[in-house]
Amino acid sequence: MDIHELTRELKTTNDSKIVMLVADGLGGLPQTPGGPTELGAAETPNLDNLAKIGASGSLVPIKPGITPGSGPGHLGLFGYDPLKYIIGRGVLEATGIGFKVEPGDVAIRCNFCTLDAEGKITDRRAGRIPTENSAPLAAKLREVKIPNAEVFVEPVKEHRFVVVFRGQGLGGNVEDTDPQKTGVPPLDPVAHDEAGRRTAEAARQFVAQAGKLLADQPAANGLTMRGFSVKPDLPTYEEVYGVKAAAIAVYPMYKGLAQLVGMEIVGQPGTLDEEIDVLEQAWNDYDFFFVHFKYTDSRGEDGDFQAKSQMIEEFDRVIPRVTALNPTVLIVTGDHSTPASLASHSWHPVPTLLVADTCRTDACLRFSEVDALGGGLGHFEAVYLMPLALAHANRLGKFGA
Amino acid sequence: MDIHELTRELKTTNDSKIVMLVADGLGGLPQTPGGPTELGAAETPNLDNLAKIGASGSLVPIKPGITPGSGPGHLGLFGYDPLKYIIGRGVLEATGIGFKVEPGDVAIRCNFCTLDAEGKITDRRAGRIPTENSAPLAAKLREVKIPNAEVFVEPVKEHRFVVVFRGQGLGGNVEDTDPQKTGVPPLDPVAHDEAGRRTAEAARQFVAQAGKLLADQPAANGLTMRGFSVKPDLPTYEEVYGVKAAAIAVYPMYKGLAQLVGMEIVGQPGTLDEEIDVLEQAWNDYDFFFVHFKYTDSRGEDGDFQAKSQMIEEFDRVIPRVTALNPTVLIVTGDHSTPASLASHSWHPVPTLLVADTCRTDACLRFSEVDALGGGLGHFEAVYLMPLALAHANRLGKFGA
Repeated sequence: MDIHELTRELKTTNDSKIVMLVADGLGGLPQTPGGPTELGAAETPNLDNLAKIGASGSLVPIKPGITPGSGPGHLGLFGYDPLKYIIGRGVLEATGIGFKVEPGDVAIRCNFCTLDAEGKITDRRAGRIPTENSAPLAAKLREVKIPNAEVFVEPVKEHRFVVVFRGQGLGGNVEDTDPQKTGVPPLDPVAHDEAGRRTAEAARQFVAQAGKLLADQPAANGLTMRGFSVKPDLPTYEEVYGVKAAAIAVYPMYKGLAQLVGMEIVGQPGTLDEEIDVLEQAWNDYDFFFVHFKYTDSRGEDGDFQAKSQMIEEFDRVIPRVTALNPTVLIVTGDHSTPASLASHSWHPVPTLLVADTCRTDACLRFSEVDALGGGLGHFEAVYLMPLALAHANRLGKFGA
Repeated sequence: MDIHELTRELKTTNDSKIVMLVADGLGGLPQTPGGPTELGAAETPNLDNLAKIGASGSLVPIKPGITPGSGPGHLGLFGYDPLKYIIGRGVLEATGIGFKVEPGDVAIRCNFCTLDAEGKITDRRAGRIPTENSAPLAAKLREVKIPNAEVFVEPVKEHRFVVVFRGQGLGGNVEDTDPQKTGVPPLDPVAHDEAGRRTAEAARQFVAQAGKLLADQPAANGLTMRGFSVKPDLPTYEEVYGVKAAAIAVYPMYKGLAQLVGMEIVGQPGTLDEEIDVLEQAWNDYDFFFVHFKYTDSRGEDGDFQAKSQMIEEFDRVIPRVTALNPTVLIVTGDHSTPASLASHSWHPVPTLLVADTCRTDACLRFSEVDALGGGLGHFEAVYLMPLALAHANRLGKFGA
């Protein structure tokens, strides 16, 4: 019996409101041994106040030592076992540009490449063609027509674009056509099952027609396809938790991930303050709110300790606007750590806060990685955050008599 | 390899004695944010002394956020995965009144109801018939005879009673006959497999004969059946842990749960002091002792913070009598939390103590929820308590060479 079988069986409804604030890449590392992390160095009076009245904990995104990408990181926070529900690269790429992948769709990451007269690859990235040149080419490929499948082509950036096939009985079990080297032609798409063979046949036809449409291009006269994948069959928040859920985010990737679990995308905010505006406006229409703040991760990825600390302070600044809404359960967490010293995602646990009338106060007086180690939520895997949120909102009944 | 496969393989025997004291619903919540819990407010000098010399920990009954009923809560403490071993409602009800359910038995929760001349339900609880009137009626139903199955009928309380069928090849996969509304007749028992069909046929015959026996009753002239279930196939303590186990409890429910895992019920104590008398008397006859104290849970369920604190103090008072027996391993825990502020079971972790010559002393100076967070046993799921107990009693060998 997995955790969703439990929540499906035990879920009840009431008027409670749950807010999950996600500061992307929140956790960090000290710059010097024994020094503070980005969070420890930041002035966070509002988060510290929440730590005093709430329960803290140390959240393990996937399993100890495993660094998550954005997809698995968020699936974990949303309570979906990231080792069970795999989001293929094609689907993640399509999701990341805001394309709404539907059940049965096959999404593929494509690269423009340069082919010589014999059809051999001379540049796997078509000279890193700038986006202003590649986007119209991607749009041109929408002229491709394939029997029994609708074709979508969406530009991404530079040499990258996305193709989605929508039709009956297509599958994602197809190998990449990028040979990962030059001097050879793109590979034939090799399928490993019947549904994959239908996709591979569509891919061959796509490549043939695209070749004609791109024939006069100096650099981007060919293409390779990678990450063939279908949308994973994810149950919705309504189904597994009984909540109507809203997602408030600036970047398409996070909207897309939220959409995969059935959240509705609300508003079109461009800043954190605008995200909180949207939260206020949508307050009466949903039970659950996922609010995503990107820049803690971005500045960590930049390797800029100081700037990441400042982003955490900016995040702290909006907390009073959220608590003023009086949510039944308020969660503050991150999808993973992004220490500036590593300039990348990491496996380190994420300090996490849960504030509710039903929470057991612990001894934490500050919101920080080290304080969270002794917190009342303990050390726990991300997938248990949603059951904890529902329990504290009195939305889960008793298991067994 | 699950934990019982491990303990089966590694278990050894010696003269050690393990005592598990369970204060039902032990964990609590503060009355005001930052205030003490029921345990924190209680004067517990003896438990605090144990915390100083032992190892504390924070026990998660099932999984984070999941509130257990008494059945799953105790199965967890006994080391049986409560998500794997499901105790059906009928079996739990029979167990709760002290009926010894045997392998293959089908137990059913029944309600007396009132039927009109057309056989439609007019009152699903037979006017909440008082127990002194319903108990003789239940006894009268023992006259029912069914081919190929022995029939047991036991009164419970008011309109409730229990029926157990004992025979070959009976199953529990049968739907309730209670339509959950009035104005319609009781439903036919719908079975979902062959064993269920045999049970359903027995149920139909029971209902038909019972109808005749109850025909002259003004209120309780019909019945509905719910929670058809067979005893789960639980290995015994002797099999999985190699210990001869005794259960000392006042209430039938906990004796019944202990019996399901092969413990022997010892004595007929009516108070906590009498339970410790029984413990002393039985000391030489068993390796393991489960001692259950009910009233911490009862006062929590009442929502009475002060009274629950007093019950914890009463529990603390008997500790010296237990330590005087010099158990090899002494465990103090609860099957779940029952915060007075919620007046119900809850999902919050349970502070837990383990005292043994082999335990690694931690920094805890008090027995409390917040102190236990930093204890040497860490944050752990209930099913690991028994392996820890056996290990500290030197009853588990090395895994692998």
